[in-house]
Amino acid sequence: MFPDTQLPEINAALAASTAAFGSYQFSSLQQRASLLRAIARELDAIGPQIIETAQGETNLQRGRLLVEFRRTLFQLTSYADACEQGNWLDIRIDQPDSERQPPKPDVRKMLVPVGPVVVFGASNFPFAYSTAGGDTACALAAGCTVVVKAHPGHPATSQLAADAIHRALAGEGLPAGVFQHVYGASFEVGKQLVLHPQVKSVGFTGSFQGGRALFDLAASRKEPIPVFAEMGSVNPVFMLPGKLGAETEWAVNQLAASITTSVGQFCTNPGLVVGIQGPALENFIQALGQKLAETEPEPMLHSGIAQSFRQKRAAVIAGGKITLAGTNETGGEGFSIPTLATTSGENFLAHPHLHEEIFGPYSLVVQCNDAAQMAAVAQALEGQLTTTLIATPAEAAEHIELVHILQARCGRLVFNGVPTGVEVCLAMNHGGPYPATTDSRFTAVGADGIRRFARPFCYQNWPDHLLPTELQNANPLGLWRTVNGELTKSGIGE
Amino acid sequence: MFPDTQLPEINAALAASTAAFGSYQFSSLQQRASLLRAIARELDAIGPQIIETAQGETNLQRGRLLVEFRRTLFQLTSYADACEQGNWLDIRIDQPDSERQPPKPDVRKMLVPVGPVVVFGASNFPFAYSTAGGDTACALAAGCTVVVKAHPGHPATSQLAADAIHRALAGEGLPAGVFQHVYGASFEVGKQLVLHPQVKSVGFTGSFQGGRALFDLAASRKEPIPVFAEMGSVNPVFMLPGKLGAETEWAVNQLAASITTSVGQFCTNPGLVVGIQGPALENFIQALGQKLAETEPEPMLHSGIAQSFRQKRAAVIAGGKITLAGTNETGGEGFSIPTLATTSGENFLAHPHLHEEIFGPYSLVVQCNDAAQMAAVAQALEGQLTTTLIATPAEAAEHIELVHILQARCGRLVFNGVPTGVEVCLAMNHGGPYPATTDSRFTAVGADGIRRFARPFCYQNWPDHLLPTELQNANPLGLWRTVNGELTKSGIGE
Repeated sequence: MFPDTQLPEINAALAASTAAFGSYQFSSLQQRASLLRAIARELDAIGPQIIETAQGETNLQRGRLLVEFRRTLFQLTSYADACEQGNWLDIRIDQPDSERQPPKPDVRKMLVPVGPVVVFGASNFPFAYSTAGGDTACALAAGCTVVVKAHPGHPATSQLAADAIHRALAGEGLPAGVFQHVYGASFEVGKQLVLHPQVKSVGFTGSFQGGRALFDLAASRKEPIPVFAEMGSVNPVFMLPGKLGAETEWAVNQLAASITTSVGQFCTNPGLVVGIQGPALENFIQALGQKLAETEPEPMLHSGIAQSFRQKRAAVIAGGKITLAGTNETGGEGFSIPTLATTSGENFLAHPHLHEEIFGPYSLVVQCNDAAQMAAVAQALEGQLTTTLIATPAEAAEHIELVHILQARCGRLVFNGVPTGVEVCLAMNHGGPYPATTDSRFTAVGADGIRRFARPFCYQNWPDHLLPTELQNANPLGLWRTVNGELTKSGIGE
Repeated sequence: MFPDTQLPEINAALAASTAAFGSYQFSSLQQRASLLRAIARELDAIGPQIIETAQGETNLQRGRLLVEFRRTLFQLTSYADACEQGNWLDIRIDQPDSERQPPKPDVRKMLVPVGPVVVFGASNFPFAYSTAGGDTACALAAGCTVVVKAHPGHPATSQLAADAIHRALAGEGLPAGVFQHVYGASFEVGKQLVLHPQVKSVGFTGSFQGGRALFDLAASRKEPIPVFAEMGSVNPVFMLPGKLGAETEWAVNQLAASITTSVGQFCTNPGLVVGIQGPALENFIQALGQKLAETEPEPMLHSGIAQSFRQKRAAVIAGGKITLAGTNETGGEGFSIPTLATTSGENFLAHPHLHEEIFGPYSLVVQCNDAAQMAAVAQALEGQLTTTLIATPAEAAEHIELVHILQARCGRLVFNGVPTGVEVCLAMNHGGPYPATTDSRFTAVGADGIRRFARPFCYQNWPDHLLPTELQNANPLGLWRTVNGELTKSGIGE
């Protein structure tokens, strides 16, 4: 029903995308914001149908899908607001000085779109990180045209979203080429897209293997292009004994929910919990293990994900370096196996395979001998999207070295909470050092994600009336601009 | 006298750099600014000595070196000011909402340093893009430690600058490990640096071959790291007949100076001039050719650069697709050969080797049949640092399609000027699409270059007194921050 798009159609899609970029790159902030809002409206209008379709394709529960659907609409409308506000343009104007020797020129800079962007839909977010998801919204806000490769796990859902985007484009009087939609179950389609000379940037959410392969392809091009791949992580939670002892039940409930929500299929799922041996940690492990043993197995996103989860879980158990603290194996093939495992600090430090993500409701508790070993465990970690500290404020202050180690390894540091639940807001950073992403200098969530698909561009001594509206003396859009080093909304010469 | 640094010393330098990063990353904006100003003072104190040394090592004239030296001091002090002002931190704070379901967290984001940075000194800027140059200043402002590989063309000059930096570090009470200096005439040293696992980012100014090789190495790592390589370009100047006819002499004088200043050894040297056949262009070519024929040959930076210039010039002449319009071959080995060549639009479009940079005082005038062919020539160009339009405002408005083609291919668009003379100011963009640089999303000149070496990081629900000063409610530093989507200098709760 959704066969892989073939090379001639991929070439046609990129030709259309490139042609549409010719005009769309010069669309006003208002036009782009209006388009994003129109996409949200068109999606909202087919809400019941698209949610039902996604339910059928992904095994995700209706309630979970509804939350994600609303989040997707919120992303579109809040990025529209940020796009229109224009702070993301990073406008800088330095005025000339003809008296200086040599004369100082008039220089004006803003961000401009990089060109056609390829976005890969994610399997675990059929709305928020797929066809009409965050990457698409950011690229359209930046002024880029977009080619989405639908995730093969939910092609019909993706098609409904693509149709909504095309209705929105038509309603806004914009060319259909601004958005193109292709299908591909094989890696070949993704490869052809990333290697296509007219593609200027790539957005990806998915596995480490997939993200790294696309990064390598993009780097191998005659003209290398940036790849922002968000590849997940184990999101370690470090627990200090004072807080854990005082609020064991709270910690157990928080972690149990975070590990099992949406069948553990979040890139911010806490796959690693690190504590210091003692009664508080023992109670915690026992209670959390019991919670997971009581958690009903559920169908996973698709059979490939369930198979991968079960294989990796079986392999780590067979490795003999962990002990099960609570699990529920009553589900059949295609179902999750909620699992809490535990190991020693020594084992964790000696066996790097224990550091790897097992995508699904699995978490490993590392029992350290003392704070020094806990710091060593933190030091041994690779880059993460998030790290979390569960501690009293006094404990956090006492263990500031640990805090610094955690900070160096992540993009977001959570205090007394859980890593799941990525708030869509400007201050959010959903990114982090490799291998959490392929470029720690950008975020995948929040309106700052627009910058992934833009580049600075400056005009020197350009006549005012030929400049983009955003850079003209009068500042007709009332934007924040840095003029001669100072932020202001005033026009020049006022 | 300056033998290649060997692997054990490189490892020691990176170990010291990593250790120093442990504390330097948390230095205050004031401390970093104070360090940059101290480096400027220490350099200024050895001004006569370092300029004389550079004169001996580079063949650059004293006047040219003095300008570059002052520029280097200005970079250090102006980036210090920008560092302290703190706008580059991109601070965003979104306040919590405990009433919302689920509760909205407190999220606060700012840029933090990426880690130890390797900087490669440039051959053509012994001060401004070498040991104490722009990349070093940006990385130190970002809070990164720096390892510089001195350019083998001017090691003694570099050593003097490195000593000055170490005196500044000592004076500021900062560890010597913040700055490390190594030597390498062979590519092996650069390779070992870029592949070193503790290096987190690379800054490079130099040839396309060198920059691409470093980019490929960095992408091949287990943990890929970003490389900002500024690799030069031909900086095409497009001239429309109205303006050219009205101000031929002005255009000739501007271009002649831009092509020959500093023996043409600038990455913004205009290596390509594009006009439309007619009397104005004929007069321009004749007069500019005469100017170049009258320009005295001068010694180039070093023998390798002179050899490369002469070989490439000879090859393009031997290719038979160009005609010489003015040249001065009276200089001996090691000297430049000022050269103006000319070709037809057809030839330029049919022979891509004519598009390549010949680093030195060489420029090629393309004589197009008409505006359509001029647009085709623009379309055929690769990414550039700059493009320039010489036109009346009315001509620019008439040829807006040409302007758009030029914009898509560069980082800076100059009107009725020349590309040389890169103003050091916040609004400057010294970057551009590949192959001008390896990452068009950043600039090498201006304080925004600090962002190359920083990444966003956010705190979620972190206690106010444990946050960095920059993010605390009271805003004790009085920084511009985006709070709940609005830019403000106010503290929170005021």
